[in-house]
Formats: sequence, C-alpha cells, structure tokens
Amino acid sequence: MNSYQKLKNTFKRISHLQYLHHIATWDEAVMMPPGAGHERSKAIATLTRQTQQLLVSPKMKRWIQEATIIEPVSEWDKVNFAYMEKLIKRADCIPLPLVEKATFASLQCEQMWRTCRSENNWQAFLPCFEKSFALVKEIAERRSAVFNLSPYDALLDDYAPGFNEKTLDPIFTDLKTQLTPLLATILEKQTKEKMIKPQGEFSTDHQYALGLKVMSALGFDFQHGRLDVSHHPFCSGGPRDVRITTRYAKTEFVTSLMAVCHETGHGLFEQGLPSKWLSQPVGHIHSMAVHESQSLLYEMEVCHSQAFSDYLIHLIHSSFPACCDMTARDLHTLITRVSPSFIRVNADEVSYPLHIILRYELEKALFKGEIQIKDLPFYWDKYMQDYLNLSTLGKDQDGVMQDVHWPSGAFGYFPAYTIGRLIAAQLFATFQKSAPTFFADVKQGNFTQLQHWLKKNVYDHASLLPTQTWLQKVTGEPLSTNFFIEGLKKRYN
Amino acid sequence: MNSYQKLKNTFKRISHLQYLHHIATWDEAVMMPPGAGHERSKAIATLTRQTQQLLVSPKMKRWIQEATIIEPVSEWDKVNFAYMEKLIKRADCIPLPLVEKATFASLQCEQMWRTCRSENNWQAFLPCFEKSFALVKEIAERRSAVFNLSPYDALLDDYAPGFNEKTLDPIFTDLKTQLTPLLATILEKQTKEKMIKPQGEFSTDHQYALGLKVMSALGFDFQHGRLDVSHHPFCSGGPRDVRITTRYAKTEFVTSLMAVCHETGHGLFEQGLPSKWLSQPVGHIHSMAVHESQSLLYEMEVCHSQAFSDYLIHLIHSSFPACCDMTARDLHTLITRVSPSFIRVNADEVSYPLHIILRYELEKALFKGEIQIKDLPFYWDKYMQDYLNLSTLGKDQDGVMQDVHWPSGAFGYFPAYTIGRLIAAQLFATFQKSAPTFFADVKQGNFTQLQHWLKKNVYDHASLLPTQTWLQKVTGEPLSTNFFIEGLKKRYN
Repeated sequence: MNSYQKLKNTFKRISHLQYLHHIATWDEAVMMPPGAGHERSKAIATLTRQTQQLLVSPKMKRWIQEATIIEPVSEWDKVNFAYMEKLIKRADCIPLPLVEKATFASLQCEQMWRTCRSENNWQAFLPCFEKSFALVKEIAERRSAVFNLSPYDALLDDYAPGFNEKTLDPIFTDLKTQLTPLLATILEKQTKEKMIKPQGEFSTDHQYALGLKVMSALGFDFQHGRLDVSHHPFCSGGPRDVRITTRYAKTEFVTSLMAVCHETGHGLFEQGLPSKWLSQPVGHIHSMAVHESQSLLYEMEVCHSQAFSDYLIHLIHSSFPACCDMTARDLHTLITRVSPSFIRVNADEVSYPLHIILRYELEKALFKGEIQIKDLPFYWDKYMQDYLNLSTLGKDQDGVMQDVHWPSGAFGYFPAYTIGRLIAAQLFATFQKSAPTFFADVKQGNFTQLQHWLKKNVYDHASLLPTQTWLQKVTGEPLSTNFFIEGLKKRYN
Repeated sequence: MNSYQKLKNTFKRISHLQYLHHIATWDEAVMMPPGAGHERSKAIATLTRQTQQLLVSPKMKRWIQEATIIEPVSEWDKVNFAYMEKLIKRADCIPLPLVEKATFASLQCEQMWRTCRSENNWQAFLPCFEKSFALVKEIAERRSAVFNLSPYDALLDDYAPGFNEKTLDPIFTDLKTQLTPLLATILEKQTKEKMIKPQGEFSTDHQYALGLKVMSALGFDFQHGRLDVSHHPFCSGGPRDVRITTRYAKTEFVTSLMAVCHETGHGLFEQGLPSKWLSQPVGHIHSMAVHESQSLLYEMEVCHSQAFSDYLIHLIHSSFPACCDMTARDLHTLITRVSPSFIRVNADEVSYPLHIILRYELEKALFKGEIQIKDLPFYWDKYMQDYLNLSTLGKDQDGVMQDVHWPSGAFGYFPAYTIGRLIAAQLFATFQKSAPTFFADVKQGNFTQLQHWLKKNVYDHASLLPTQTWLQKVTGEPLSTNFFIEGLKKRYN
C-alpha cells in the first residue's frame, strides 16, 4: 500500500468518526434527555479530540511527505491530497487539550443558550458565552498565524473557502445599497395587497405528514434520511443517513414547511454526492456557502414560486380541510410577504441579507476587538434600528440570542447564507435557460428536470473545484449580485 | 499526576467513547433509516477500534506497571485498578483489525437478521451468521489462551464473571429436574382457571402513555432517560442517559408493558449507580447476570405480583376504557398464565429457564465443535420437543432466529438471565423480610421501600465485590435455586 492509500484509509476512519459525531449532536438536539447534557458534551469533546489525534499523528505527517510526489493519479486524487494537506495543517496548529476544551465549552454554551433564550436571560448566558468565544478566538488566532490570514478571515475560510473580508465587503455594500430602497418600494406596494392567513389549529402530526409528502416530491430518499423536530431547524448526519429537522407551531404551518424545504435542499445535496468519494475530503462539502446555495435554491427559487404554491395548495387542502377556501394565489402572497421582523430564519428574502450583514459587521468588530461580547445587545439593537427600523432593546431572545450559531461556536458562518443565496440565484438562472418548462412541471409536483441538472452541475462536483472556479464553469460568469437582485425585482415588482 | 491518575483519565475517555457507542447502536435500532446500515456498521467498527487502541496503548501498559504499588488508596481504587489490569489484558490479546472486523461482521449480521427473521429465511441468514460466529470463536479462543479458560468459559466470563460451565451445569441440572414436574402440575391446575384476555385494539399512543406512567411510578428519572420503540426491547445509553425500548402490538398491551417493566429495572440500576465512579471500570456493571437480576426483580417479583395488578388495573381502566370490566384478579391471572411457547421473551417464568438451558446446551456444543451453526435448527427443534413439547421445524423465525443475541455476536450471554433470575429471587426474599408492608404499598403505586433497599444493597455496590461475595454479604447465603423454586411454588400452587 502506498502512502497516499494509507492516508485515504485514515481519512476513511476519520469520516466514520465524524459521522458518529454528527449522530451524537443530532441526538443531543432531538432526542437526548435534558439531564445528560454535561456528560454528552464531555463525550463529544473526547470524540473530537480522538478524531483530531488521528489527523495529526506523526504517521500522517510522514505519509504526507512521502506522498507529495504521487504516481499519475486522477484530478480527484490530486485535489483530495491537497485537502488532506490543508486539513492536517489546520488541525496541527491547535493543541489537543484546546480542541477538547473548546468543543466542551461550545456544547455547554449551546445547552445554556437553549434555556437562557427561552427565559430571555442574556445576563445568565453571558459568562458561558464569553468563555466559549475566548476559545473560538484563540483557535482563530492560531490558525491566523499558520495560514497568514487575519483571525476573522481564518474563520471565514472554514465556512466559505475562497471568501474573506476583502471579497465580502464590496458584495455586502452593494447589497445594502440596492436592498434598502428596494425593500421600501416593496413594502409600500404590499400594503395594498390583501393577505389571508390560515386560521385554526394545525396539528403537528398533520404538519409532519405534509412535510414528508413535500420532501418525497422534491426527491428526498427516506431510505437514507429522516425528518424530526428540534429547537432550531438543521440538517446533519451523513450522505447515507441525512437527518433534517424542523419545528412546529400549532397556529400556522407555512414557516415550518418552508424550513423543511430549506433543509431538504441540504439533504438532497448530501444524498446526491458521488458515492465513490464519500469518505474522502474531496467528497465532502467544505464550503457552507455552497451548501447553503442548495438549501436556498430549493427554498427561495423553487418553493417561493407561484408554481410551487399551485402544487402545494392541493396538499394543504387535503391536510387541513379548514383551509379549503385558501387559493394558490393566497398561499403565494403569504409565502412571499415581505415584512421586516426580528428573526432571521423567519425573514422574507428581501430583508434576509440585512440580517446577515448585521451579523457580519458585528463579527468583524468582535474579532478586531472594537467591541466586546458584552456589548452585543447594544450594537444589535443599533444595527436593527439602522437596517430594519426595529428595536431589540430588552428583547435579546429575539435579538442577539436568536441563533444557535454563536452559542455553538460557529463565528464566521453567517456570510455563507448570503453568498449561498447569490450562488443559488445565479445557478437557478442558468438552469432555467435549459429548462423553460420547469415551472409547468412544478405545478404537477414534478421536479425531475432540476434534480438531474443539480446532480450533474452541483452534486457530482463535490469539492473538486474552488467555489468561484466551479461557479464560473457552470454559469459562465463570476459570482454576481445581479441574479439575486433581478430575481427580487421580477418577483416583487 | 501519578500513573493511577493517568489511567483513570484514560478510562474516563474510554467511558465517553463507550457512551457514544451506545448512543450510536441505540440510534441504529431505533432511529436509523434502513439504507445507512452498512455505513453505520463501518463507523461503529472504527469507533470500537479507536477505543480499543486507547486501551492497549503502550502508555497504558507502562502506567499499569508503574502503578502496581499504589499509595494507600481506598478499597474502591484497588478494585478499580484490578479491573483496569483485566480489561487491558483482555483487550491486548485481540489484534485491532480483528476487533474491527468482528464488530463490523456482528453489526451486519444483526441487520441481516432483522430482515431474514421477518421472512423466516434461515438459509439466507446462514452465511452471514457463520462468518460472524467464526470471528466470535476466534476472539474466544484468543482469550481462552491468555486467561487459561475454555473458549466458552471465556465468553461466560464476559457476561457473568464468576460463573463457568463447572458452576452452571449443576445449577441448570437442578432447575431442569425441578421445573419439569412443576410445570406439568401448574399446567394441569391452570386448565381449570378461567382467563379473560382483553379484546379490542390498543393504540400505541395509549400504550406508550401507560408505559411512561408505570416507569414514573417505579422511579425512573426522565431527566436522565427515555422510552422508545425497537424490534427487540433493550436498555442502553449510559447512567445519565438511559435508553429503554419496547415494541407494541395493537391486539394486546400486557407483553409490551411487561417488557417496559423489565427494562425499567435495568434503567433504575444504571440511574442509581454511584455518581463518583460512573466513568471508572469499578462503577460499571460488568456482570450481566447482576444486571438481569435487577430487570427480573422488577418484572417477576414486583410486576407479576397480585398487588401490582391491583395497582395497575386502575391505570388500565383509564387508558383503555374497553377494558372496564377487567378486574385486578383477571389481570393477574393473565400476567401469570403459564403456557409453554416458542418465544423466550414472551415465556412465562416457569418455562423461561428451560429456554435458557436449551440455548446454553447448544452454545456448549457449538464451542466444543460437537455441532455446527448450520445444525442449529435441527437441534433447536429437538430440545424444544424434549423440554417444552413444541416443534420449531420450519419455524426458524420463532426458533433459532428469535433472539438478537447470537446475530449480534453475544454468545455466552443467555445464562446471565437465569443466574439473574435466581439472584433476583434471593434478593427479593431478603428484602421482604425487612419490608413486610411492601405489597400493601405496591397496591397504592408506592415502591419507595424497594427503591431505597436496592440503592443501598445493590446500586451503591456497583462492581466493588465479586457477584457471589456480594450476594452472600447481602442475603447471608450463597447463590441457591431454592428462593426461585419456592417463589414459584408459592405463586402457582
């Protein structure tokens, strides 16, 4: 066995441990009895440590050196090898006790967040959050030194490789400039539109059954995945075992169903990855921006369309007879209602990027040391007032404490949503050129044209190419805000 | 930090990985989508390998040598250290690739079993089963050489330390001799008794809710545990996160509920173990015989009593109004009905040990090479005819394929049930002497006297003493079949 083969074997083992890690965190969010939190955090921290230890063992470094001149192998192997090098280098600069400590702290912080958020108690949450943030920062600084990036850029590189402050700033400035007047225009226009909200109580059993139907229609494979309930919707597990979650309110079903559509987009991506490379770094999706492009493409481009409402209304009528008077037009009006609100995950697609820009600005300031964790509620309120004319003073539950990302240590993740949204719009515009009858099919609940196109142009690529190169190859253009903005204008004007 | 402390730290890590192992196998049986089976088996095999690697690392062996003369420490530390030595020695004789291969094979075999059992297809199951058995045998033979035991005794030592063929043979001969005529007498007597079976359909939701009520009354802590559904009832997870399962039939609820009572006994034991030692070998229960004594004490001594039926009937009336005519006496008659049948887990307590003896005889013959895996259906039928006058020819589903144990590689486990049953009877007789009002309390749904007694006399001991020493200490007598046989005579004569 040559050194590259030995590396591949170890990365296969690492992918096994990561799969169990994902099952353990899924279980923590979905199944775990509350009293097990501390023990679970300790256990996951140990698993992370053992996984990291495999990655940075002296053998691995020796194999990397021996394998630098590889025999003629495929392009996939070359890229795979480059990922191996990077992942080992990335892991090697973080001492194992720090890995263990940071993993434990972030899991404890996330558990604390669940309680404190429901109690709107920022003060009780703060010490735990500061402790976890300090460790995230320490890790970012160590990476920063090794990869010659600023600490915040090192984190951005974790979630959206190929993007950094320098590339994101002009994109976000452009979006802010264009969205602010567009939002005002749309709001003005929509005040004249009548919106009918479904009334009544919508049992979670029926909502669940409806979710399963929609997932099936979109192409989700239940032999390799399932739908459950958690505090915050997410997609985890592994390509052969995709776990998506949503949450239900009994007073309405659209929010939960759209979360299902979003997570299904993630799930289809995982299930569609090329089998041959599933256990290797090149076969995983390292860019959460690319991953979010798939969830957002389904949620925003497909499920926010009028055609999708035309399809969905039949399912709704049979699931909820109380909604029998609702028309497909009413449903679409409801789904595409623009109304700036506190909560990012419930935000309409026009104001959504402003929620992201707010978080991006705060993260930059935090990592530059311009503001401290304890100042977040003040600045959150300030930016919300500036961008969306809403105040979150005294409402930290719906302000700084609304998202799971920071409590779980995922600083630098948020920009991936908006980059993902831009990619989604750009991909979908390209797809549509080749599939002019797509929305006619959607009305019939048929999504196969898109499924095939994504398999070929997205899923089958996995992480073979850098994001921008791949996007240019598939769409013929570099990343641009135009497709997204034009799409909004078309839908809302 | 001294060497013993370093050993303790590593064993703590090992207990973390074992906890995640249990969650991953629980998930496999309860949650996992079917297509993930192969990947899951690979992942668990890797986790087992990594755990084993921690256990047999050169450091561990060095620390064991350095720590052999420990500073004055408690009795608990001394026993803990002895367990560490044994566990390392036990692991060290099995090469890592064999550990990985055997874990994978047994998980694959268990998955295959679920399908083949439902199809009654022994022939399709056989090749996979033979392959897994060969690996179990290889491991047993390696242990046999190191511990100077026969291969089968090495397996018995895994599940019921302190017991071997030499100690089990006379116990099982005694039981067979006494139970055969007793069974005939009871069957004769019960033909004259009227038995009323509840009629109708019993929704799984209501059965689940009833199960939760009974678990709560028995003292199960839902902050640290939960109840779910699987193909075969079991208890897993960890002391802070106890996962018990049952299965439901819509045509009757007693079988499922009794499985809940059994598994709750396991769960209470785990939840009651001394906090201080949870992460150390001395704090785990190594003897499944002792563990089964706790499940069987609750199931057979408590929940099969007339007093428990007196308590349960009220819950049943409110859960299933269709059963409003059923009396506590009817319920007790139903629960204590003796009727030899094919399935061990559904067996009455009189014929149950005969199911175990059958399996014990077959296991002995397998490990002596007197019979082969392929011969099992023939011998299963032969023994069933001899012991219970039932033929399983062509009914492998309800014969050799009925239990999860062999498919999952757990050869040598079965005797633990009957040893556990004898211990349960002996413990309960001792407890009753100190609690003459216990059954009056049970009628009111109050089990606290027993809870306190078990905490003090069982749970708090964890694995500090060898089984027989502990039993002698608590009950004042060595293990005996008398308590069990006398209990049966009292209940059924």
